[in-house]
Amino acid sequence: MVASAEEAAFEVGIKFGTLYHQFAGTPVSPESAESLETAIEEAIENQPHCVDVTVDILEAELEAELAGAPADYTELTGRFMEVEVVVDYEGTQAVARMAMDDGYPLMELVEIGA
Amino acid sequence: MVASAEEAAFEVGIKFGTLYHQFAGTPVSPESAESLETAIEEAIENQPHCVDVTVDILEAELEAELAGAPADYTELTGRFMEVEVVVDYEGTQAVARMAMDDGYPLMELVEIGA
Amino acid sequence: MVASAEEAAFEVGIKFGTLYHQFAGTPVSPESAESLETAIEEAIENQPHCVDVTVDILEAELEAELAGAPADYTELTGRFMEVEVVVDYEGTQAVARMAMDDGYPLMELVEIGA
Amino acid sequence: MVASAEEAAFEVGIKFGTLYHQFAGTPVSPESAESLETAIEEAIENQPHCVDVTVDILEAELEAELAGAPADYTELTGRFMEVEVVVDYEGTQAVARMAMDDGYPLMELVEIGA
Repeated sequence: MVASAEEAAFEVGIKFGTLYHQFAGTPVSPESAESLETAIEEAIENQPHCVDVTVDILEAELEAELAGAPADYTELTGRFMEVEVVVDYEGTQAVARMAMDDGYPLMELVEIGA
Repeated sequence: MVASAEEAAFEVGIKFGTLYHQFAGTPVSPESAESLETAIEEAIENQPHCVDVTVDILEAELEAELAGAPADYTELTGRFMEVEVVVDYEGTQAVARMAMDDGYPLMELVEIGA
Repeated sequence: MVASAEEAAFEVGIKFGTLYHQFAGTPVSPESAESLETAIEEAIENQPHCVDVTVDILEAELEAELAGAPADYTELTGRFMEVEVVVDYEGTQAVARMAMDDGYPLMELVEIGA
Repeated sequence: MVASAEEAAFEVGIKFGTLYHQFAGTPVSPESAESLETAIEEAIENQPHCVDVTVDILEAELEAELAGAPADYTELTGRFMEVEVVVDYEGTQAVARMAMDDGYPLMELVEIGA
């Protein structure tokens, strides 16, 4: 028997894996960051039990990366985004976040509860 | 020695492979189709030599797929989009399109020229 | 405070979302199914807390899909694979599976425990 | 009217875009590099007109990246692979390669001919 809190945690984990591996690698620039944020949020919010997705593509980080680079775009990766996902599984909410931690994109379950 | 027309054809091919395999599998619904179209267009237009990208996600096809289905979204695949990409390689344009043909998404080079 | 069982469920969810959205869309045929199974398993087993990944690409389903089709390959999607992932989070195991259910790939948390 | 050389160039471009954007982001380590190379080669060789794909995942580069890092895997990206693809379009061959150039993965059409 699996508890609702565990189901909620499982579901929010699926959303994070989906979000990261569907969109990592997308060509992105400071100019296209906003449309990509919106599309990622609306795409993931389609998934079951998903209540809210907030994606912040870090334009200042993109600009720093591109300063002096030969190209004017790069590939989306964990360094360039912060994400929060809220799932509701039969009344139990799970909230998870992704941000950089020691050079790696850390996905973290920050809250579970009714 | 590679001619400009061949370089233009190569570049427009790269854009099609990128577009399809970056975004196929994205959760999509009639409601989220428009933001995904915009994000795909702006993402691919970042790539070198890319002049214009037009993505039409076929909302009527999505609605037909979802009628009577247990879920209210599906995964983006070739059946649900038509695409045109225009590349300019040092003055030579290449235009390619993708549409369904006999059940497969056919990518076709439709025009090359100055 | 998040319990170990919830962390384990979150981690196994991440692995499923990753697996599906990294590899869905890959060109696959009965001949290339086996190398893709192995690569998916070894790729996902790299992720933190992941103990074991078993991917079965359904060659009979691929062959049925391709019988009479104009091409001899298709794109990997949920209809063509069954997956089991085992995660161990600080001594708590979580097991999840994916298989088709009413036309959709259902990801299911099947067991959590010490 | 599109010449065979241009069609061959278009096709080899599609294969490169596919290969890069299908597999970039895959979790990879020195231990899993070989199975991923094989799977990428066999997957892309399924595509129309594709004669040969050679993928070299650069294990020394992976090891350098991971030395001193908190994790023992990373995400596949252009820095960690060299690729050659050969296409034959109705008797006309096109050969393209990808390798790093000034910090970017450069995809280059290296030969077209009968």
